[in-house]
Amino acid sequence: MVQGIVNWNTQTTQKWLQNYVDDWVNFYQKNTGEGEVASYIPILQEANQQHLGISILGIDGMEIRSGNVEIPFTIQSISKVFIFIVACIQRGVSYVLSKVDVEPTGGAFNSIMHLETRQVKKPFNPLVNAGAITVTSMLNGSTSEQKLEGFYQLLEKILGYRPPLNIDVYESENETSVRNRAIGYYLLEMGYLESELDLTLETYFKQCSIEITIDDLAKLGMILANDGVDPRTQEEIIPRQVARLAKALMLTCGMYDASGKFAAYVGIPAKSGVSGGIVAVVPPRARNNPLPFLDGCGIGVYGPALDKQGNSIAGIRLLRHIANQWDLSIF
Amino acid sequence: MVQGIVNWNTQTTQKWLQNYVDDWVNFYQKNTGEGEVASYIPILQEANQQHLGISILGIDGMEIRSGNVEIPFTIQSISKVFIFIVACIQRGVSYVLSKVDVEPTGGAFNSIMHLETRQVKKPFNPLVNAGAITVTSMLNGSTSEQKLEGFYQLLEKILGYRPPLNIDVYESENETSVRNRAIGYYLLEMGYLESELDLTLETYFKQCSIEITIDDLAKLGMILANDGVDPRTQEEIIPRQVARLAKALMLTCGMYDASGKFAAYVGIPAKSGVSGGIVAVVPPRARNNPLPFLDGCGIGVYGPALDKQGNSIAGIRLLRHIANQWDLSIF
Amino acid sequence: MVQGIVNWNTQTTQKWLQNYVDDWVNFYQKNTGEGEVASYIPILQEANQQHLGISILGIDGMEIRSGNVEIPFTIQSISKVFIFIVACIQRGVSYVLSKVDVEPTGGAFNSIMHLETRQVKKPFNPLVNAGAITVTSMLNGSTSEQKLEGFYQLLEKILGYRPPLNIDVYESENETSVRNRAIGYYLLEMGYLESELDLTLETYFKQCSIEITIDDLAKLGMILANDGVDPRTQEEIIPRQVARLAKALMLTCGMYDASGKFAAYVGIPAKSGVSGGIVAVVPPRARNNPLPFLDGCGIGVYGPALDKQGNSIAGIRLLRHIANQWDLSIF
Amino acid sequence: MVQGIVNWNTQTTQKWLQNYVDDWVNFYQKNTGEGEVASYIPILQEANQQHLGISILGIDGMEIRSGNVEIPFTIQSISKVFIFIVACIQRGVSYVLSKVDVEPTGGAFNSIMHLETRQVKKPFNPLVNAGAITVTSMLNGSTSEQKLEGFYQLLEKILGYRPPLNIDVYESENETSVRNRAIGYYLLEMGYLESELDLTLETYFKQCSIEITIDDLAKLGMILANDGVDPRTQEEIIPRQVARLAKALMLTCGMYDASGKFAAYVGIPAKSGVSGGIVAVVPPRARNNPLPFLDGCGIGVYGPALDKQGNSIAGIRLLRHIANQWDLSIF
Repeated sequence: MVQGIVNWNTQTTQKWLQNYVDDWVNFYQKNTGEGEVASYIPILQEANQQHLGISILGIDGMEIRSGNVEIPFTIQSISKVFIFIVACIQRGVSYVLSKVDVEPTGGAFNSIMHLETRQVKKPFNPLVNAGAITVTSMLNGSTSEQKLEGFYQLLEKILGYRPPLNIDVYESENETSVRNRAIGYYLLEMGYLESELDLTLETYFKQCSIEITIDDLAKLGMILANDGVDPRTQEEIIPRQVARLAKALMLTCGMYDASGKFAAYVGIPAKSGVSGGIVAVVPPRARNNPLPFLDGCGIGVYGPALDKQGNSIAGIRLLRHIANQWDLSIF
Repeated sequence: MVQGIVNWNTQTTQKWLQNYVDDWVNFYQKNTGEGEVASYIPILQEANQQHLGISILGIDGMEIRSGNVEIPFTIQSISKVFIFIVACIQRGVSYVLSKVDVEPTGGAFNSIMHLETRQVKKPFNPLVNAGAITVTSMLNGSTSEQKLEGFYQLLEKILGYRPPLNIDVYESENETSVRNRAIGYYLLEMGYLESELDLTLETYFKQCSIEITIDDLAKLGMILANDGVDPRTQEEIIPRQVARLAKALMLTCGMYDASGKFAAYVGIPAKSGVSGGIVAVVPPRARNNPLPFLDGCGIGVYGPALDKQGNSIAGIRLLRHIANQWDLSIF
Repeated sequence: MVQGIVNWNTQTTQKWLQNYVDDWVNFYQKNTGEGEVASYIPILQEANQQHLGISILGIDGMEIRSGNVEIPFTIQSISKVFIFIVACIQRGVSYVLSKVDVEPTGGAFNSIMHLETRQVKKPFNPLVNAGAITVTSMLNGSTSEQKLEGFYQLLEKILGYRPPLNIDVYESENETSVRNRAIGYYLLEMGYLESELDLTLETYFKQCSIEITIDDLAKLGMILANDGVDPRTQEEIIPRQVARLAKALMLTCGMYDASGKFAAYVGIPAKSGVSGGIVAVVPPRARNNPLPFLDGCGIGVYGPALDKQGNSIAGIRLLRHIANQWDLSIF
Repeated sequence: MVQGIVNWNTQTTQKWLQNYVDDWVNFYQKNTGEGEVASYIPILQEANQQHLGISILGIDGMEIRSGNVEIPFTIQSISKVFIFIVACIQRGVSYVLSKVDVEPTGGAFNSIMHLETRQVKKPFNPLVNAGAITVTSMLNGSTSEQKLEGFYQLLEKILGYRPPLNIDVYESENETSVRNRAIGYYLLEMGYLESELDLTLETYFKQCSIEITIDDLAKLGMILANDGVDPRTQEEIIPRQVARLAKALMLTCGMYDASGKFAAYVGIPAKSGVSGGIVAVVPPRARNNPLPFLDGCGIGVYGPALDKQGNSIAGIRLLRHIANQWDLSIF
């Protein structure tokens, strides 16, 4: 445990924490040999399995970055959190939740059977594909550009720039992700979709193909940690209720069918994507012992080698280690 | 929002909070007409549908109690949390987790199909019946008395007394709960059980039939809120890691197949039982605005009229209201 | 029971049987008020719910027709039997059966969940949508016209003409049958399809939209009853092994999720379609008592009001009555 | 129709057929090395994997027996057919069918999930465990002896003796078959059982433990082939309607989850048991070419090495060969 720290925002402290994180990243890079880079979208296979990087951004402004921090990667399923947020802003929370439930599935992210056997006739939650596609269909606009505009504006406010669309990944997704088309047609038949299916899937694939870095993820997470308010400007970028809801969803459903284990062993709201990114959100904590990031922080992790559930192997181990060392769990 | 409070631990403050809670309990007693008292165990049907009570106990010692606070009721599924804790103490966390997963099910608490279709060959989590029966089979002892001894000792340490077994409820459960026998035989066939089935079920039904009050639940919850340490004595009653794990499980799986919604709308680890009890755990929080129970608290609620998922209707609404008013969410 | 018949192939006998059938058709027209005309393809809703007709064609040449015999209707799922036959002729029985199983599903014809939970990784059978789409993908040809050519040739050989495609129904199917697209994309992802998905579905919808009459169905059934040989010419139109296989499939899987009941209560291989048609096949029988159609026959029925499983209500009752009266069961 | 055959019941013909069957049995004994003897009931493991025997009994009295014909074995699931028959005789067909459906399951014989997901709230059919246990609960009597009396009387009428109960197998089943207890409790909870569960299971395990031979199975099958009438005495032992229904069920559901394949490739109503027995029923046929057993026959097969579905490997291959050679398929 960290002890005797008086003022975190000094250079000394930051350097001291930085040393720890550097050690841990080095240590967990050994796990990058395990698992496999996602192959269901061919272009994702080109990622370098050895990469591992982390970026931590405190609400109080402290930054720690380590490992391969500059690698851009596509946001993939992490976008589901923010598309849900945008839909809540555009359509209202209660409307969105009338169309999508917020229950964990107990199954894989791309399951159709769970829809078919479900008694409540709406997708389980916005963080599995069926729910995310349904949420995408609710976005305002009649072209994918219009539909994505809200997401881009949110990203721009938080990141300070509009991250680019990786056209190759988008086209690769568009061509190969037939399971999502299967899900989409199922949703269409059930009457869940609010836009034309092709438009919805085009938008969905595009939002998954936006290219970001772990610094971007750390910023996104930090805003959520601070309940939607940018601590630098005090601007409310995401309504507090929506930010809270998003964090609850991340905790119960964010890490595919390992969400329960991540909640139990790490205890931080997080969302992963098949490109190997994870955004984690540490809300402000009240602990008796002085620990880093008491005011909360956002964390971005990148490690493209995945476990069977589709989460970054080294990323999860690194987050678990840091959460335990620094007592970041919300429980 | 509550504002301008200087020192919570004064009589003035407590009275002021008490007035709020009294109002809210009165308000939500109107919901006791909805839902239905559990009928699957005949004796549970004798409960008075009108009852609603709450007991809040802060780590700092503050107590607020309102409504029907004296009614004893059987602990039912709430015992699952503490049996899991006892098993972790007796057998070690890693052993217990090698036998039971910690994932939400996406289905009903008594589902067999979810076991049958599951790829990972262990029960989903310790808070559904299949997992709880498996955990019960791990308890030390070769009689139900021996197996229950650890649970009784835990209760005695926290409550200061050994709560009685309601023999009528036990016998009623033992006779009528055939679904649990179905689950038990299924677990037996799969090789999940570590004790003889009859012994396991006898123990399971007995632990469900222990009679407690909402004050007892508040104490149990408060100890969990304080990571297993009794704030009055500083004694560690539950290992910190186990207390954390229990809270994570309660959040992801504690409220049957409404766990996701409870996490999203209330945001507090909680576990309910079909007798109408709920234990909720508010970990210490760090908020910018002065709010009650910043150091964390345990909450016991009783309201026997249940919704379709098996949770107390009025109890859930009351908890949601308090959590929103006092900003108790962990997110 | 029919008794004392000396020579069935006389005009007297035929007239006598005709009177019976006329009575029964009149009687069962009362059931046409029950059930509902299929609505999932809008144009099918235009069918006249009052219609009921039957056409029986013996291998020995005897013909009995009654009720609304002239109404054309689209063949719909009945095509599945013959597409399977064509695929077996073109690709070989063993190849086709390596790609599609021949087991009943226990579920609805359009279930995806049954595919997802299945251990054997191929569609259940050629008579549910998933299996039929897979079989369609195996047909020779790179355009839908080429793929349909084998089916048309088979129909022409048996019927003496090429039945028309109902363009309106085809377009209606093509536009509205999103569930089949969901299934199609699922099959594509699983690697089951042997042609491009769009081509496969276009072919599938077209083959469902071919317009026939109950006389046509009776002819098709009669050829199957005679193990694929045209009794008029002794030409083998369908290989004997394939005809046998088709009849077995019809018995176990032909009537959607009422196939078991149809086998139990009627006992004749049959296949229904959502337009209200049924083709039934009575193989030659060996009974001690003189009964009609001992040499076997084909039966076409039309009654567009469907039960919940998607079978013609009046059609099933009429077939059951005739089968019981004339002892047509194969058991 | 068979022509040119003067008298099958001559010694010459019988000897000629016998030679064929001897050859085939010799040939298929090579398959007895594959598969595995059932192990879920320990005592069944003691069977000799090398054994293979067949007994064919024509309605016309012709007998052919080959291989290991004298080995006694327990009837196991084959009893399900006859318990269903007894229940229909005692309680009426319509009553029994109001409690148990007659649809194939698409799943394993011991599935609980198929019960849980089913929309129609009754067991799928009398030939899976859930259905058979339900049917057993309907048998008249308040002790297992009384409940079994109808079955024993049926067996005595057909076999000429009361076959013994194998106490060791019964006790082994009673102790080990926990899956059936799981199913039993599930059925009890759903309100499907008409007798006390313990009595029902005791009866169920006993009826499975009755010891018979392939000659017995051939006799049982022959009576079913002749629609329930004993051709030697013309006594109706099983009502015609019930015999027909039983044969239909055997065809659609008799061979576990390989029933569809058996119907497609063999085409004869049959029921297997995990001890390695199969009873097959060949109804009278009408074929153009001269073949044996035109009047129908019963077939008993024994070969304890099972495939994954629980059917005798060598037994199925032998039956398939004979059915194809002699054109015994009902289609």
